[in-house]
This record gives sequence, C-alpha cells and structure tokens, in this order.
Amino acid sequence: MSAEVLCIGTELLLGNITNGNARWLAEQLAAQGITHLRQEVVGDNRERVIAAVRAAAGRCRVLITTGGLGPTPDDLTTEAIAAAFETPLVEHPAVWADIQAKLSARGRPIVASNRKQALLPEGAQVLPNATGSAPGMIWSPVPGFTVLTFPGVPSELQAMWRATAVPWLAQAGLAQGVFASRLLRFWGVGESNLAEQMADLLDGTNPTVAPYAGAGEVKLRLTARADSPTAADALLAPLEAEIRRRTGTLCYGVDDDSLASVVLAALRRRGESVAVAESCTGGGLGAALAAVPGASDVFVGGVIAYANSVKQALLGVPAAQLEQHGAVSDPVAVAMAEGARRTTGATWGIAVTGIAGPGGGSDAKPVGLVHIAIAGPGVSSSEAVRFGSTRGRTWIQTLTCGEALNRLRLQLG
Amino acid sequence: MSAEVLCIGTELLLGNITNGNARWLAEQLAAQGITHLRQEVVGDNRERVIAAVRAAAGRCRVLITTGGLGPTPDDLTTEAIAAAFETPLVEHPAVWADIQAKLSARGRPIVASNRKQALLPEGAQVLPNATGSAPGMIWSPVPGFTVLTFPGVPSELQAMWRATAVPWLAQAGLAQGVFASRLLRFWGVGESNLAEQMADLLDGTNPTVAPYAGAGEVKLRLTARADSPTAADALLAPLEAEIRRRTGTLCYGVDDDSLASVVLAALRRRGESVAVAESCTGGGLGAALAAVPGASDVFVGGVIAYANSVKQALLGVPAAQLEQHGAVSDPVAVAMAEGARRTTGATWGIAVTGIAGPGGGSDAKPVGLVHIAIAGPGVSSSEAVRFGSTRGRTWIQTLTCGEALNRLRLQLG
Repeated sequence: MSAEVLCIGTELLLGNITNGNARWLAEQLAAQGITHLRQEVVGDNRERVIAAVRAAAGRCRVLITTGGLGPTPDDLTTEAIAAAFETPLVEHPAVWADIQAKLSARGRPIVASNRKQALLPEGAQVLPNATGSAPGMIWSPVPGFTVLTFPGVPSELQAMWRATAVPWLAQAGLAQGVFASRLLRFWGVGESNLAEQMADLLDGTNPTVAPYAGAGEVKLRLTARADSPTAADALLAPLEAEIRRRTGTLCYGVDDDSLASVVLAALRRRGESVAVAESCTGGGLGAALAAVPGASDVFVGGVIAYANSVKQALLGVPAAQLEQHGAVSDPVAVAMAEGARRTTGATWGIAVTGIAGPGGGSDAKPVGLVHIAIAGPGVSSSEAVRFGSTRGRTWIQTLTCGEALNRLRLQLG
Repeated sequence: MSAEVLCIGTELLLGNITNGNARWLAEQLAAQGITHLRQEVVGDNRERVIAAVRAAAGRCRVLITTGGLGPTPDDLTTEAIAAAFETPLVEHPAVWADIQAKLSARGRPIVASNRKQALLPEGAQVLPNATGSAPGMIWSPVPGFTVLTFPGVPSELQAMWRATAVPWLAQAGLAQGVFASRLLRFWGVGESNLAEQMADLLDGTNPTVAPYAGAGEVKLRLTARADSPTAADALLAPLEAEIRRRTGTLCYGVDDDSLASVVLAALRRRGESVAVAESCTGGGLGAALAAVPGASDVFVGGVIAYANSVKQALLGVPAAQLEQHGAVSDPVAVAMAEGARRTTGATWGIAVTGIAGPGGGSDAKPVGLVHIAIAGPGVSSSEAVRFGSTRGRTWIQTLTCGEALNRLRLQLG
C-alpha cells in the first residue's frame, strides 16, 4: 500500500528550480500515514514518462505525478500516461467549458492548445483544479494501481491535494493511521557519538529514531505510527524521555527551536535582557537573535567591534589589554562582554573574538581559534574553543555563534 | 553518455528537508554539458538502494549518489552499492588514518562506527573529502558504468565535486568539449522582467543564457561549449557585453561575487572604510560584510541598535527624533548612519531601521517597510523601501541587507 512521487519537468533536470513539490508531497504522505518509498524526476519526454509510469505501476499502489499538464507541446504527462496503458484520450466537455470560462475571466485568449487540457484517458476521473486552468486526474488503469496527476504550480497542487486527494486517499483506505514526529536538537556532541549513545534505540521500528547532522548541531527525528494522533504521541513520549535522560543538557530544544529562540525564551522567563559584542562574527550572533520573531523584548543590540579601534571606542576595551594579550584572548573577550553589558544596560553580555581565516592565523593563534566570554550578574568569564581551519570561514563563524548562544543557555540553566 | 542522480535518505521521503543537492548537481551537470535524464530518491534501505543502483547501471554511464556515507547504521550507501555488484568491501588504511586525525583535531572521540567509513568496494577509488570525515568513491563495477558517491552535507558534496568529480568527468570524456560558464548577478530587477529584456537571447543554443531567481537577486548563467577554453571564452565575451549594455548598473557582479564583496572591493580601491548601524537586521548587514575573507581592512564594525535606548546611547540618535518620527523613519535612519560614521571614524555609514514582522506593523508603517540611510563624504540621505509582509521576517531581513549594500554600491559608482 505504498505511494511514489513522479515529478515531470526538464527544468528540474537542468537545475533551474528546486523540487519543492517533492518535499511538500513527502510531508503530506507522512502526515496521512502513507508509506512513501520512492521519488523520481524525469524530463518532458514522452518515452521516459511512459517508462517511469509503467515501472511504478509494477511497484506501488498510488503514483502521484506533478507537472506537464499545461497547454504547450512539452506538457505531455496526460497523453504519456494514457499511452503507457494503451488507452485513448477522450474530451470532457465540462472541463473544456471550465477552461474557456477561466481564460475569459482573466482576459486571456483561448487558443487551440488549451483544448488538449480537457482530454483525459478513457475511464479517468477529473481531479478538479479550482484556481488554474489544468485539471488533474484520478485513474486506475490496472487493478491495484491508481495514478493521481497534479500541475507543477505549487499553489494549485496544494489546493487540489487538500480538496480532492486527501478525501480520496482516506476513502480508498490508503491513509493508514497517522504519523507523529518530533525533532530533538543537540549542541556540543557529534553525530556518531550521539548515535552510539542511542544505538539500541536506532533499531526500533515503531517509534523510530534517526540521526541527522547539521551545521554544528545534531538532530534526532523520532517518528511513531498509530491509529490516532493521541496514540502516536503516547508512543513518542517515553522515547523522548529516555533520550533526554541519556543526554541531559546536550538536548537544547525540539522541532522549530533554535539556540537563539531557546536563549531568548529563557531570558524572557527571567525578565532579563542580552547584548552582544562581536569581532570575528561581524554581526552574525546578533542576526541569529534578531531572526527570532519577537526578539526585541529581550535582545537590545550591541557592538560589532571588528576593528580594535571600535573595541576601544565603543566597548571600552583597554588599549593595554589589546597590546599585551592581543585581540583574540580571554581578557579582551571578557572586557568586550562587560563593555556590551555596561554600554547597553543589558543583563547579560556575550562576546566573541577569534580568527575566522583564511588569513590571520599563527602557530599560537591558529585559524579557527575563538574566545567566547559571558558577563552577567556575578559572572564574568571567557573560554577558548578551536573549530579548526578545514571547513572554512563561514563554518567557523556559524559555529562560533552557536557555541556562544549555547554557553549562555547553559549559564541560564 | 548520460548521468543520473540518486539521493539516498529517509529524511527526504519524510519531507524533513528539501532536496537542494539534486538541484545543485543538476546545475553542475548542465554546466558540464552532461546529459541528465533522471533523478531518484530512495530511503536508507539496503534492498531499495541495491535495486536503484542495479537499474541505473542498465541505463546510464554515470550514477551520482548523495547521502548515506556517515558512521551510523542507517548510512548504508557504500555497502549497498558493493552488494549490488556482489563485491567485498576492503579497508583503506590511509582513509582510516585520515578519519582519526580529523576527529582528533576537533576533539571528538573516535568510535568503532567511524571505522566503517574507511571501507570501500574492492577496486573502488577514494573520492577524497577534504573537510568532513566521510570520503566518497569512484567505482566502475561493470564496463561502461561508473558510480560516484558523495555525502549529503552540501558543503562537503560541493567541495568534493569541484576538486575531484569535475576533473574526472573531463578526463573520462564525459564532459563534451570544453564548457565555459559565467554567472552574471543582478540586484533591483525581477526574474520575469529581466527574462523579457533577454527574450531573444534565451533561445540561443551555444552560448546559452538561463535565468535563476535567488533571495532578492536574479542571476543569468551564460554557458558556451567549444574545443578550447579560449574559444569558449570568445563565445561568451560578446554575449556578456550585450547583456551588460542592456542592463547597465543592474548587473552588480559575476560568479562568486556578492554585494558585500563588490562593495568592499570598491571601498578598498578608494582607500575608504565602512561601518554599519542596524536595527531590524540585528547584525545581518555586518555579518554579510564579515563573511567576505579579508574584510577587516575596510569593514570596521558598527552598532546593533535594536532597542531605541541603544540608538541613543551608542549612536547619538536624538530622543526628540525618535519621539517625533518614530524609530522607523528617514530622520532616525540618517542619524544612525551619521552616528555609525562618527563613533567609528569610518568613511561611510550605512543604517537600516524597519519592521521585519510578523508583529509591530501598522497601516502607516506596515511589516516590510524599511528605511535605509547612507552617510559619507558630502552624502547623508535616507529612502524607504517596502518589501511586503507575505514572504516573512527572514526574507525582509535578507533583502534589507542586500538593498543597503546595493545603495552604497551605486553611491560609490
């Protein structure tokens, strides 16, 4: 009872557009509890569409296609699917009337090529398109196999999916229960290390646990299938509790949380605020905080102290410290964090100063070395971290922002 | 002589992530002149990977896979490909040594599961990964068919593609002739508008012109095929000149240029410097400048004036202006830009203040309204821009940074 997705369009194979429809349909199928084992992309080529549809008919219960329903000569999805099962096309007069009405309403000319959009294989049912001109179809050309076709325009596809495909899938008995999914987010642990701690859980079949690596963070996706949302959630809860028990403070959040959103929420609960003082990240730490909607009640701003003169003028870092220890040092990081706190009046100051490279490194202070300081009520300390030079400047800047936010998160408890 | 792409990862079939790798590889194959007829996605499932690889071997000359090279049990791409051709895996001691060295350098523990990343099918060649731990492979298990494997992490895939796959494809005679490619970058014009201006050029076959839309920017990819690099470049030059003639200052750069890198280069030529004053972007403008290697000789830093108190305390914005005009206004933007210039001593100050949403908008000052000011020698002016609210906060922040940099670019001439 599995489904496959076939996206048809040469623009996808040329890399002109990202295949957002494939992801959207994948999410929808998961939400419906429909097993989804395969996606395929082919160009606007009759023979290859025919081959792909025939192969899918031998493997899956439902094939969902996107694209190729327009009026131009390279839109050949419907005729290729009909040809795959040697079935003639027939015109649907009501569809043709609807197409003409829609074109007229938009002041568009009605041309001969529009008429082919009213053709469907004999026996196929119309999958109505309320907004665009091209309808799709629901067709079972052979027993145990149904194809649903959709246009490539995302808004039309999505509206048609909700209005017609979802009820049809339920009525056909294809939507098997429901899936519940939860993403746990970790900072300060590698993917392989985390996976080893979870080795026994990774073998589960329901619920399942799968690790993913991001930029500096690692995620675990927990997925459960059950008859109802409540029952699926009930399967997830003890698994999540066990993972949290094993990993302690390494788990910083769930689902759409970011380190910045978690830190802002913790500060908001405490009625506190934060300011930044950034050298090597140049504003990236502040941008991460400002990316969170509603940040302004907690995040006040700060200073981008890229040049040493700005560290002195706006943060009050003593010239003697810069001379004695260098800009990339614990004393300067602490002075920056305290300066951010003092000049803005924020409860907490976070400062980062490091060598993002590719130039500027030395044996004593290599590319990837960053000092991160936190200043706040009763707290004023800095620690160095080394991110290495191999992954480059952007990587070092991104990880510096994450590490700084994580240190404040741990400080806030 | 065609290529196919096989992306392996259950997260793709669950819709957890968009398949950006498929699009990136499609663009690269097009740029190399390699025919690309098919893309497929399967999950982390041994039998389905084996079936997909065997089917591809019967159809195409080169199969490119992404994903499944990590250390965890669900990373099974290499073993499944070996099994597809009944070939044993052998350990590459140099790869294992490299993996251990990389993990040690990052202070990460070396665990048993990492060792499987050093295994490749007998006869396969290592496709080196300079940054991550997992190498890929180049393997021809049967005559006339080669598989190249890459990790799913985009930065690693892209670096490995450029360093090893591109030369290999050329040497193997798969890249037909020599391709020269040039990406022209535009700011301040929409994709369809630019495409209409280029309508006659989009039909060309050699060289070709293809438009791509990015976040706020539009790109035109020019590609020419010839017998030699010189001949290919000679085909591109008049085309580029014609496009530049039609578009004037809309074209801000080529290839890997960014608005930030172009602005920094222009300032460097003039021996000038720049500082930022950011409200709604929270540091994103500074981060864009700091993302460019070597920015420090031109970019001095600035102030993240998210709260009004910081606008007053660190930039000297008069309280009366904030009260009279509000923080999102031309007078405040100008005062911020002048303040950034004055407090840092930079030649130029750029300031942005706006409503990034989703909250905080009003009829007079809706979400998406941003005031951008430039202050410099003989210049002190601000202008509003409206990005609309429909695409959300991140979009507004990203476009604000681009628009501010573009204004300074046009100012510098």
